[in-house]
Amino acid sequence: MSDQTTTRRPCVPALEAILGDTIPVLDHGFVRVVDYMGDDGAIVQAARVSYGRGTKKVNEDRGLIRYLMRHRHTTPLEMCEIKLHVKLPIFVARQWIRHRTASVNEYSARYSILDHEFYLPTEETLGAQATGNRQGRGDPVSKARAAEVLGWLRGDAEQSYAHYKAMLNLDGPDGGTADPQVEGIARELARINLSLGFYTQWYWKIDLHNLLHFLSLRIDPHAQHEIRVYGEAIARIVEKWVPWAWEAFRDYRLEGASLSRMELAALRAAARGEAVGQPDLEALGMSKREAREFFERFPEIAPEK
Amino acid sequence: MSDQTTTRRPCVPALEAILGDTIPVLDHGFVRVVDYMGDDGAIVQAARVSYGRGTKKVNEDRGLIRYLMRHRHTTPLEMCEIKLHVKLPIFVARQWIRHRTASVNEYSARYSILDHEFYLPTEETLGAQATGNRQGRGDPVSKARAAEVLGWLRGDAEQSYAHYKAMLNLDGPDGGTADPQVEGIARELARINLSLGFYTQWYWKIDLHNLLHFLSLRIDPHAQHEIRVYGEAIARIVEKWVPWAWEAFRDYRLEGASLSRMELAALRAAARGEAVGQPDLEALGMSKREAREFFERFPEIAPEK
Amino acid sequence: MSDQTTTRRPCVPALEAILGDTIPVLDHGFVRVVDYMGDDGAIVQAARVSYGRGTKKVNEDRGLIRYLMRHRHTTPLEMCEIKLHVKLPIFVARQWIRHRTASVNEYSARYSILDHEFYLPTEETLGAQATGNRQGRGDPVSKARAAEVLGWLRGDAEQSYAHYKAMLNLDGPDGGTADPQVEGIARELARINLSLGFYTQWYWKIDLHNLLHFLSLRIDPHAQHEIRVYGEAIARIVEKWVPWAWEAFRDYRLEGASLSRMELAALRAAARGEAVGQPDLEALGMSKREAREFFERFPEIAPEK
Amino acid sequence: MSDQTTTRRPCVPALEAILGDTIPVLDHGFVRVVDYMGDDGAIVQAARVSYGRGTKKVNEDRGLIRYLMRHRHTTPLEMCEIKLHVKLPIFVARQWIRHRTASVNEYSARYSILDHEFYLPTEETLGAQATGNRQGRGDPVSKARAAEVLGWLRGDAEQSYAHYKAMLNLDGPDGGTADPQVEGIARELARINLSLGFYTQWYWKIDLHNLLHFLSLRIDPHAQHEIRVYGEAIARIVEKWVPWAWEAFRDYRLEGASLSRMELAALRAAARGEAVGQPDLEALGMSKREAREFFERFPEIAPEK
Repeated sequence: MSDQTTTRRPCVPALEAILGDTIPVLDHGFVRVVDYMGDDGAIVQAARVSYGRGTKKVNEDRGLIRYLMRHRHTTPLEMCEIKLHVKLPIFVARQWIRHRTASVNEYSARYSILDHEFYLPTEETLGAQATGNRQGRGDPVSKARAAEVLGWLRGDAEQSYAHYKAMLNLDGPDGGTADPQVEGIARELARINLSLGFYTQWYWKIDLHNLLHFLSLRIDPHAQHEIRVYGEAIARIVEKWVPWAWEAFRDYRLEGASLSRMELAALRAAARGEAVGQPDLEALGMSKREAREFFERFPEIAPEK
Repeated sequence: MSDQTTTRRPCVPALEAILGDTIPVLDHGFVRVVDYMGDDGAIVQAARVSYGRGTKKVNEDRGLIRYLMRHRHTTPLEMCEIKLHVKLPIFVARQWIRHRTASVNEYSARYSILDHEFYLPTEETLGAQATGNRQGRGDPVSKARAAEVLGWLRGDAEQSYAHYKAMLNLDGPDGGTADPQVEGIARELARINLSLGFYTQWYWKIDLHNLLHFLSLRIDPHAQHEIRVYGEAIARIVEKWVPWAWEAFRDYRLEGASLSRMELAALRAAARGEAVGQPDLEALGMSKREAREFFERFPEIAPEK
Repeated sequence: MSDQTTTRRPCVPALEAILGDTIPVLDHGFVRVVDYMGDDGAIVQAARVSYGRGTKKVNEDRGLIRYLMRHRHTTPLEMCEIKLHVKLPIFVARQWIRHRTASVNEYSARYSILDHEFYLPTEETLGAQATGNRQGRGDPVSKARAAEVLGWLRGDAEQSYAHYKAMLNLDGPDGGTADPQVEGIARELARINLSLGFYTQWYWKIDLHNLLHFLSLRIDPHAQHEIRVYGEAIARIVEKWVPWAWEAFRDYRLEGASLSRMELAALRAAARGEAVGQPDLEALGMSKREAREFFERFPEIAPEK
Repeated sequence: MSDQTTTRRPCVPALEAILGDTIPVLDHGFVRVVDYMGDDGAIVQAARVSYGRGTKKVNEDRGLIRYLMRHRHTTPLEMCEIKLHVKLPIFVARQWIRHRTASVNEYSARYSILDHEFYLPTEETLGAQATGNRQGRGDPVSKARAAEVLGWLRGDAEQSYAHYKAMLNLDGPDGGTADPQVEGIARELARINLSLGFYTQWYWKIDLHNLLHFLSLRIDPHAQHEIRVYGEAIARIVEKWVPWAWEAFRDYRLEGASLSRMELAALRAAARGEAVGQPDLEALGMSKREAREFFERFPEIAPEK
């Protein structure tokens, strides 16, 4: 980080306080705030340009931010930007990069040599395949099974990294050439022997609107654990950066819900005091599975069993 | 349009039937389907690639599309694309272009001469400024006031177009030079005399995911009438093109609702049979205005007055 | 602007010095730097992440930035961001908004009342239609013709603004209601009477890579004068902000050239000392017009007439 | 593919002829055209909308497409769209996905089980690390070294796949459960043991403008061999699809060149018959390396040694 200097730009002391700090995630990963632009006030400032004289009477900034979030007027949120340095396993990077609205500079394994660092789940996170959910993770497996699996993961990663170094003709992480008689394979080829658990790193820059969308997907309980922990670390950063926007995001998005026409009709009926049963939900157009999930989500309505 | 020819691509007979037809909108505008790619089946096809063997048991296509819409798995919707030719007033084009995820080729008034066509509201749509909503339109004004206003709109448009032609040194829409002694002003300058009510046209190409997002904003009752009628015309096209996706979009987005944490809590309380009053809503975190709008939205819950 | 405060983020004193200053453009427009993120060093920093250990030997930052520009490794340029407040005529805004990679908050004439400010060309910029170039502007017209045209432009703008106010039932720019008996037309409708020469304003935020692309198109001699002057004002800002990137951009993009296969072959032939005539260029695949323009561009090669 | 049916959309017989065909790339990969929209005529059609009456005199379509490409008027190229099904190694997918302007549906290893297929270079493509270029590949290594390296690559891939199946508790590619007593690890975790050489697949949809940009980077000699062969397969598809656009792209982009201010000045001097030496180039602003590369690129100019 730069030494302290003076600026006339908006500053966020709570974010300045952690600027450049490495926030650990998983076994070798991290998130680090490199730079940022804007604050809660910058959102308000941009919204006021849109509304011009029309908002003279809007009383206060927190209320305006909540109004924007509630009505999905999201363009003022694009006026804030953040740049993070992230170290993350390649399989996490592969999910992350699907968000196309960010700028990325990733460590290149064509130019450089990947570090000897790979992700291993803990015993607690080494879950069985979920049964009800084809993409999910169930309870942790037994300690014996975990030991077996971790042994494979560790052993294969160590062996493939040893061969990676041997292909590159390096004998150590210091990058020294091992044997001048041996031909070093191109880095861009040697790396293909490494597994998806190895760590990469990148600079990642995104505006607040798109970051909140990223977070809404990635801190969701259905997201894979290993990306969710990054999402949660970033969420804590956002909370420091733009506390009003974060509060509004929680109230109107994260802890709210999108209801279907059928769900809305069922809730209205329940609010009128009507009994709502599975046949009613299906008559509205829900599938059996939707009806079941609706009752799980709204146990207040579920008919007694 | 091309003559009929054979293809091995997916075809949608209901859309082929209107391909190239001019669907009138407003007084001089139109929407016209120029080309399209994909159908409901293309959404399913792309989703099945994502899920691979994992979806062997998903029984049918309509259900899969509904599942995607319900869980906001929107990437398969990007696999369908449509190209429209649209004629629209410039002030409508200015709102429309804010959707950045489309491809556009607009008629250029630097190269060419704009037609002598401008939008005039009808008496029915010539509304007063709304009182409760700073951006909205209220009831139609009186016939006398409408006549006065339409007179101004028409008169100013006619006069500015006459001067436009005079600057260009043209005496008619056929583009003939009026007087070889008079200097014609550059088209790129002369056009600045025309008002936002004049018509422009463009080719506009967008994928289904982004089109549905466009429609969700533009057929909303808060959208300006003059863009909403375009949205509605396009909605009828989408319904022909991808009927299952459209049905799912209506059930899970258009006719559903996004509820805040506070609204959700209030609905749960009502479903449990509890009385919910204004103070309860404010205790949950709603502003007075939100509470009032909540009761308007859910009259089932509103306490008796 | 904020008062001075301290930050650990990269700062650019030359840009801080003009932060918030209104830089006049055209008769009523301006550009104003609201905020920025990053500097030349931030480009280098991001590039070094990509190259990792691989760049230990790259000697210095200016050279690395030139290397990036030369090889079109543009992603590190995305790591810098700038936010401008711009006041501009609507016809300029219509060209500007076609750049889809920026964030925009525009003054809304649905919410608010547009100011009584419209663009008028000067006598010097009031050009005739170009003859060789369908979209271009030729020499200024005569003073008499200019006076006539400016009279129309001013008169029509004044009249349409007067009617705009009359529709809104306002008697002055202070926004006071004129006559409580008269129905005010909805702002979203009344504005359609205004011409493309009226001023709007927006906050516009973009990263450096996309900004340089914008500038390469908009400070080009073929760009319309009225947007080019904005481009030139922004170019001077970029030069203060990231002087090395700007220098490299000039050397490798602005003052360089993209040559076709045919142009390249002709230049190679000339460099070998061969005479190159029109038939040679056409034999390479140029059209007559391309050949003529080639000789205009490279008079060193043009055969003597 | 669908059976043949009739359509009024533009059709390209040369592309219809290969629709759905699997074009092999690398040892287990492929490219397959799934669908397309538009043809050379669609580019012309969109350009004519932009130019309106202004292009009455443009004589023919091929010339107009060349004009667009020459002047980088690229928006009409966005009016064509293609959808490909691609099977590719994960390390290739990681480079490919950096192009953010496409739509993608990738096979999900959270839902489904990856096939037992990984990429192995051939002896001919198993290159040594390049010496002059930190990211490049030099000559093939010796047969003995190749055998050793291929042994490691194959052995590690086989072992990690065997453990992958063992974690999933599957005994074969048919997906049957091996031993009901053994806990199957979640697919989303087990996959992290697989290397970057394993194959994935996706549907990839992109417009022609962005596809040409992709190709300009990916069929460049500096691109990694394993992605370049995909680029070349797609280039042959594009040539069938839009032959005029492809020809223009080759003439104005692929086989042309972007020259810097310094290169342009040096070429002009050479065309005037002046001798141009290394000191001259450096005086213009080139680095020593640029000057050396300039002479390699333009041996016509290089001073005799």
